[in-house]
Amino acid sequence: MKAQAECFECNIRQALEAVEKAGKDRHFAWQVLQQVCKNYSQADSNWTPAFMTTVAHRITQEMVGIQDIFYEEKKYYNRMALELYPQLKEYVEKSNNRLETALRIAIAGNIIDLGVYKEVKVNEILYQIEHIPWGIYDWEDFQTDLHSSKILLYIGDNAGEVVFDRVFLEEINQGRQIYFIVKEKPISNDALREDAIEAGIDKIATILTTGQGEIGIDINRAPQEVQEVWKRADCILSKGQGNFETLSDRPESIYFLLKAKCKAVSRELGVEQGALVLKKNHS
Amino acid sequence: MKAQAECFECNIRQALEAVEKAGKDRHFAWQVLQQVCKNYSQADSNWTPAFMTTVAHRITQEMVGIQDIFYEEKKYYNRMALELYPQLKEYVEKSNNRLETALRIAIAGNIIDLGVYKEVKVNEILYQIEHIPWGIYDWEDFQTDLHSSKILLYIGDNAGEVVFDRVFLEEINQGRQIYFIVKEKPISNDALREDAIEAGIDKIATILTTGQGEIGIDINRAPQEVQEVWKRADCILSKGQGNFETLSDRPESIYFLLKAKCKAVSRELGVEQGALVLKKNHS
Repeated sequence: MKAQAECFECNIRQALEAVEKAGKDRHFAWQVLQQVCKNYSQADSNWTPAFMTTVAHRITQEMVGIQDIFYEEKKYYNRMALELYPQLKEYVEKSNNRLETALRIAIAGNIIDLGVYKEVKVNEILYQIEHIPWGIYDWEDFQTDLHSSKILLYIGDNAGEVVFDRVFLEEINQGRQIYFIVKEKPISNDALREDAIEAGIDKIATILTTGQGEIGIDINRAPQEVQEVWKRADCILSKGQGNFETLSDRPESIYFLLKAKCKAVSRELGVEQGALVLKKNHS
Repeated sequence: MKAQAECFECNIRQALEAVEKAGKDRHFAWQVLQQVCKNYSQADSNWTPAFMTTVAHRITQEMVGIQDIFYEEKKYYNRMALELYPQLKEYVEKSNNRLETALRIAIAGNIIDLGVYKEVKVNEILYQIEHIPWGIYDWEDFQTDLHSSKILLYIGDNAGEVVFDRVFLEEINQGRQIYFIVKEKPISNDALREDAIEAGIDKIATILTTGQGEIGIDINRAPQEVQEVWKRADCILSKGQGNFETLSDRPESIYFLLKAKCKAVSRELGVEQGALVLKKNHS
């Protein structure tokens, strides 16, 4: 997917939020935003939205001198999500359609700002999940492809969210080989290997990394091991907007699981902003 | 007031909205935003927020080749507000405190996006106005200063809003000489002389212009006539954020009437975002 005009505004806001999270003052923020603008004055409209986000976060990381600005936030999200884990499992147990429920839970991790929901009961979260409409729902294809899959590649997204991914992966772990990809280096609140392990993903999947500290994943620049798994996998699932932005033009068959949070991604997918998406590309 | 880090994001959004209103495509929008960013990479933190807004709008006007991008919108807002005028007048007639009601109506023009409220009854609008809390309410000073005023200078803000200003000015037009300032050239949806005349302001006030097409007003660069009235006036009322941003550091006594719409202005005033403000500077 190519970057859109809306990406300028959104990523400048993200840079400011990161500067504030790093505890820097207004004067410092001003200098960071000047630098992001300097870079964006040369922004190529062939960039992905994810790359624009990476540029903003990288400038901020370098200027504030903290590589993992969102460290505390990620730990907080992991903890919150782990507290919900037993109830999420129970919810799958009791549901009529376990696969669909587990899938909804995985996408829930992409929906939920756990900071907002920490005091809210899991049933209320699930009620919300159930009532958000699907914009795209390639359910039949997904069931078929998943059923025949032996090597599954799952491209993870944020810290906290990885606990929700675990619930889903535990449900579909029926003799499959599962690979789970996280970022190699910190970028925004994206999950690192330590987050995946904290979430218990290592109990069910082989954890690999993108080799980079960038939003999304560029398979062509990924480590050899990831490239090999990418070729061997018979089912690829991609979580969240950043991975969609960097993988949407790939020729391989990929399922995108996400909530279309922003105007640019919603328009690209042809869905209402806020809709849930289970989309097979080339379907 | 000095520009804040939030102003980068807000003004880039405004530039994009203006490009879209001008009917230009994504490719064109991209080039405009690159140009805004180029300019903002050199942004001086001593600029006013209003100047940052002016830069974004001016770049957009020049690149799209349309000076008055918001012309249709302004006409629409004027028409909507004029349809409400008889009901606003009646509301003042029936109220227990006519001055306070008229003042609230004037600020209502700064609150209300008439595009949103066109189908809504005036009583519902006024209900909303009445229930938005005051962040700053220098009512006693205002009453005293207004009571003794003979030459009143009122610095207007947006098209549509000028009709609400008229209701207020008609209420306080008790033998006073009233001057009403609009922009000389188009900028955003700010009122021009033609908007003030359409709203009927000319029946009650002498209309002057800032001499510029910039957000807010810089008295030092205003026409001689405005500078003279500025000195002669014994009561100065300034509407909206743009005028506050450019006048807040002036040594003269000024009443600021506005809704603190954004984070930067709310923080500057020390009020909750969204609060109503009737503030006398140097009070």
